[in-house]
Amino acid sequence: MNLGAIIGLVMGLAILIGSAAVGSAPSGGMGSLWDLISLLIVVGGAIAATCIAYPLEDVISAFAGFPKVFKTQGFTFKDVVQDYVGLAEQAKKGELAKALEETPEHMPFRLGSIKDGIRMISDGMSKDDIRIIMENKEQYRALREIKAANAIAKLGEYAPSFGMIGTLFGLIFMLAGMALPPAPGVDPTAALISNMAIALITTLYGALFAFFFFLPFSEHLKYINEEKKVESALHLEGVMLLYDKIHPLIVQERLNAFLPRKDRFTDED
Amino acid sequence: MNLGAIIGLVMGLAILIGSAAVGSAPSGGMGSLWDLISLLIVVGGAIAATCIAYPLEDVISAFAGFPKVFKTQGFTFKDVVQDYVGLAEQAKKGELAKALEETPEHMPFRLGSIKDGIRMISDGMSKDDIRIIMENKEQYRALREIKAANAIAKLGEYAPSFGMIGTLFGLIFMLAGMALPPAPGVDPTAALISNMAIALITTLYGALFAFFFFLPFSEHLKYINEEKKVESALHLEGVMLLYDKIHPLIVQERLNAFLPRKDRFTDED
Amino acid sequence: MNLGAIIGLVMGLAILIGSAAVGSAPSGGMGSLWDLISLLIVVGGAIAATCIAYPLEDVISAFAGFPKVFKTQGFTFKDVVQDYVGLAEQAKKGELAKALEETPEHMPFRLGSIKDGIRMISDGMSKDDIRIIMENKEQYRALREIKAANAIAKLGEYAPSFGMIGTLFGLIFMLAGMALPPAPGVDPTAALISNMAIALITTLYGALFAFFFFLPFSEHLKYINEEKKVESALHLEGVMLLYDKIHPLIVQERLNAFLPRKDRFTDED
Amino acid sequence: MNLGAIIGLVMGLAILIGSAAVGSAPSGGMGSLWDLISLLIVVGGAIAATCIAYPLEDVISAFAGFPKVFKTQGFTFKDVVQDYVGLAEQAKKGELAKALEETPEHMPFRLGSIKDGIRMISDGMSKDDIRIIMENKEQYRALREIKAANAIAKLGEYAPSFGMIGTLFGLIFMLAGMALPPAPGVDPTAALISNMAIALITTLYGALFAFFFFLPFSEHLKYINEEKKVESALHLEGVMLLYDKIHPLIVQERLNAFLPRKDRFTDED
Amino acid sequence: MNLGAIIGLVMGLAILIGSAAVGSAPSGGMGSLWDLISLLIVVGGAIAATCIAYPLEDVISAFAGFPKVFKTQGFTFKDVVQDYVGLAEQAKKGELAKALEETPEHMPFRLGSIKDGIRMISDGMSKDDIRIIMENKEQYRALREIKAANAIAKLGEYAPSFGMIGTLFGLIFMLAGMALPPAPGVDPTAALISNMAIALITTLYGALFAFFFFLPFSEHLKYINEEKKVESALHLEGVMLLYDKIHPLIVQERLNAFLPRKDRFTDED
Repeated sequence: MNLGAIIGLVMGLAILIGSAAVGSAPSGGMGSLWDLISLLIVVGGAIAATCIAYPLEDVISAFAGFPKVFKTQGFTFKDVVQDYVGLAEQAKKGELAKALEETPEHMPFRLGSIKDGIRMISDGMSKDDIRIIMENKEQYRALREIKAANAIAKLGEYAPSFGMIGTLFGLIFMLAGMALPPAPGVDPTAALISNMAIALITTLYGALFAFFFFLPFSEHLKYINEEKKVESALHLEGVMLLYDKIHPLIVQERLNAFLPRKDRFTDED
Repeated sequence: MNLGAIIGLVMGLAILIGSAAVGSAPSGGMGSLWDLISLLIVVGGAIAATCIAYPLEDVISAFAGFPKVFKTQGFTFKDVVQDYVGLAEQAKKGELAKALEETPEHMPFRLGSIKDGIRMISDGMSKDDIRIIMENKEQYRALREIKAANAIAKLGEYAPSFGMIGTLFGLIFMLAGMALPPAPGVDPTAALISNMAIALITTLYGALFAFFFFLPFSEHLKYINEEKKVESALHLEGVMLLYDKIHPLIVQERLNAFLPRKDRFTDED
Repeated sequence: MNLGAIIGLVMGLAILIGSAAVGSAPSGGMGSLWDLISLLIVVGGAIAATCIAYPLEDVISAFAGFPKVFKTQGFTFKDVVQDYVGLAEQAKKGELAKALEETPEHMPFRLGSIKDGIRMISDGMSKDDIRIIMENKEQYRALREIKAANAIAKLGEYAPSFGMIGTLFGLIFMLAGMALPPAPGVDPTAALISNMAIALITTLYGALFAFFFFLPFSEHLKYINEEKKVESALHLEGVMLLYDKIHPLIVQERLNAFLPRKDRFTDED
Repeated sequence: MNLGAIIGLVMGLAILIGSAAVGSAPSGGMGSLWDLISLLIVVGGAIAATCIAYPLEDVISAFAGFPKVFKTQGFTFKDVVQDYVGLAEQAKKGELAKALEETPEHMPFRLGSIKDGIRMISDGMSKDDIRIIMENKEQYRALREIKAANAIAKLGEYAPSFGMIGTLFGLIFMLAGMALPPAPGVDPTAALISNMAIALITTLYGALFAFFFFLPFSEHLKYINEEKKVESALHLEGVMLLYDKIHPLIVQERLNAFLPRKDRFTDED
Repeated sequence: MNLGAIIGLVMGLAILIGSAAVGSAPSGGMGSLWDLISLLIVVGGAIAATCIAYPLEDVISAFAGFPKVFKTQGFTFKDVVQDYVGLAEQAKKGELAKALEETPEHMPFRLGSIKDGIRMISDGMSKDDIRIIMENKEQYRALREIKAANAIAKLGEYAPSFGMIGTLFGLIFMLAGMALPPAPGVDPTAALISNMAIALITTLYGALFAFFFFLPFSEHLKYINEEKKVESALHLEGVMLLYDKIHPLIVQERLNAFLPRKDRFTDED
């Protein structure tokens, strides 16, 4: 569970709803913030424009990516280093292939990238082939996974734009209506003011969806992607060291270099 | 057929027209959204500025590129990998040149890049020459094809700018007119309000053309260009592996590295 | 003649003037769009700021660069490829030095870069020296020529800023004037409205000069620079191939890789 | 103590409070600038959105990073160069390992990076291993430490956005309230004006927190990160030179190249 | 003397003051443009925020860098090429070390970078050491000198932001004051209008300082930095050629490649 995203979402909603409730009290409640057509223009318009900009399957995988923001990966980089140090010891004994059947003691599962790497070593592939395969896998994984983050960022870019389009719709209709003779019994100034409030709602929705929803979620997916790049660099280094049967102590030193001092794996762990 | 673009276009138009119909009902219909001169300023101005910024043939090819957004390429990267694995088997038998006469079983056509690569191998060109030719072809293809996307992006950048220019025209004429004594029988406030609505229409058109049309289309062309880069990387790797007569299983592993796990070509396919 | 820039300029002016004529008809003509001081603030201010940002000779060469946008270079990349293929045939016969005295059949002139390259080969310079000289020439040419485009882009960036400064001047003076008791016989509201129109004119000028003039011209110069980079890459490859006395057919294949399929030089040409 | 940040903070606060005091004197004091709900929307909203965008521990370390802006590191690059020159002399005598036990004369402490480097040399690690470890340590340190700066920059990006959201809340409620019949004894224009002031407060808070607080602090952390990159380049070069037992005079010349002329270490120092 | 900056500054001031004088004539003179507190908020606030963002010594060196914009360096790149060609002739005669005692005929002084390079060659340092030292000197010089330009750019970024903060202060106090009962004998509309003018002044100051002062000066410092990069590339190439005792004619051809055709050094010079 990614506590940060949950805290952010709950705290943000509490602040927005609370302040809206307090602020709207003198003017008859929060009802004036709700307008279905405005919601359609902002969210529907942003999704429509994003469907043009990106293939449908990327837009769908972008929406499918939202829950990822609430998950954590269940292991630390230190666990990964520890696993490679353990594997380096098994490699020294010539038992690397056997390691595939086991699960590391300190982790509930063995990472797919580690298994793939050991399998390629055991299969007798050349070091260059393994390196190129691992580099390509990572490069194209990063390219693919950033797409979902980019599609959500586009939603965050288009939402305020459609908010502005909705506001312009509202202003134009309001002004066009004002040029007509007022309906009997209607106060034209009150009508203008009320229409103005409605016109501003799409701008509000655009800003809310962009800055409280689409953009932070997109940022988080980009963040996850960056973390995976670090993890992949660790795997590439680790597998290359296993291939060369490097001494476990050097493996530890080499892989610890990727981590901050306080998270490094030491023998006391 | 690129379903996403069609859904996006239809959904977006339905939302915009629907909400305009509902919103304009009290003020006498959607007629107040239509203004030919505003359309001319926004679209004509944006095209004029883009014609200055880019050579005419690029602007024309940009407009010719719009239909591309609705097309899909009719094959997957997995098909490409499968074709190279099949070719690697034929290369093992020394029958690579013969492969040029055939069409792969699982695809209705053989890709031009694959044919070019095999032909260069069969012609006895050096590996370095082939690699340099393929890299240059790709580099300059990407440079050329991004131009259409950039020209459409410029349209999307200039459209709101000319929208603002049109609005400034409208505001200045309106204010200049207000300083004149009002024509007899005309309510000056109503005239001001109605002129204001017209002035806002160019801003609306600028935003609509930019955010619902030019910018998402430009994004999609950029997306297609990125996909072609991945495809070209696949071809370069594939042809180099064919040149070296690498074993089909290694070819499969090397090329699968470019694809997400679920799309990889396996022998069960 | 670059037809695109001429069409863009004429079309844009026709649309702007035409729509201004129609729009200003009810308010006494287009005279309300003209204000000399506003023009001075926007264009003079932008030039002044650009003179601070760039050395005077660069600003002058930027203005000297405007006519370039209307010119075309008078040859295609295919002509360049054809010339190198012809030179490769002469190099095979050991007659490369003689080629300097001739003009290629299909072009009215021989390009300076080709002449320089052949001369360096004939002078017996080393391949590395020739490559480094050609690379440095191109790198520093691109750096120099982009400066003019950048200076014009700065004009396009500062023009709207000085437009805003002019508008703020206008608004402040207008409001300050309104606080004074109105002159006898002057309608204060009419004065306010008319001053407001004048204040908006600098914003309009800023937008017009930026989006219809400075920015598209700057874009076009950047475009020309990009095209020259492709041409230079072609020259570098061509001269290196001539140096190595590569077979004309390989030269043709290697250089064609820089061009789109439809523009490639083939023996039928 | 980083005097600049303290001067900036004190001077900025003095100017803002002083000018607010003078400016608000005719309208009954600075009380009109204080609104708790506006503060909650701007700061709370920005923190909430940042918690979604970044993991909680990064947001916390971002806030923990604020005091860093007021600290200085307590040594200059010249001190680092001097230490390496001294170590090069000890290395010449074969006493490098002993250096670990000492503290350099001109500095109150020995830097961790220098100690780590000497230890790796003394442990007999290969030059390549040491170089790769030092490069990876630096690359991933920079990636990690820039995160805190980025999270604070996000706060500075979201603060004005939530400022705008708060202002839209205020405007919508105000206009909605105006459409209601005014409460008896309340002047509706005065109510509108007073509500308008409150609506603008969130925009003000958003700008103040962004431009006077979050963005400059984030800039400073980025600055510190850039300085550390220079320091790390110095360590990498220094340790490599120690490994190769280079003459102290060359070490001095090589390392001085990183420093401005006036800060270089010379024998007179 | 950099004539451009002086022309830009004088011309810009003349235009701004002239147009302000003409524009303010009907409203009682330019006095309405002057407000000390607004100046304090904009300039003081921008300096305060920049002091937080950058170390104090960098802010001071940024201000110290302003006069640089008015200076020119007193030699051209052609002079530098000519000096290296002359030195290459002396190197041929084995008299390079002697060259250090002389001043080149066509220049009033010998550049420090040339002297440093010759000294290192004469000292018998290895080519690699000289190259690495020269590259590092240049890289870290560029990093350091761009800091002053960046600090001034930050001033240009913060000035309009504090302009907006000042305007919001003004608007909030004005609206808060309007909600109070008007002081006897004061026309509330006139007060509102006059306060509005004052509120706009900070926005004006922010724009003026940013677009006429901080940003163009920062641009110019960046420009100077780019020019120094070209000069440094010339020095690196020149010293490497001297090291290898390359023939003066090749030196001339190699170094001329950095210059535009019209500025190249030829034997006729």
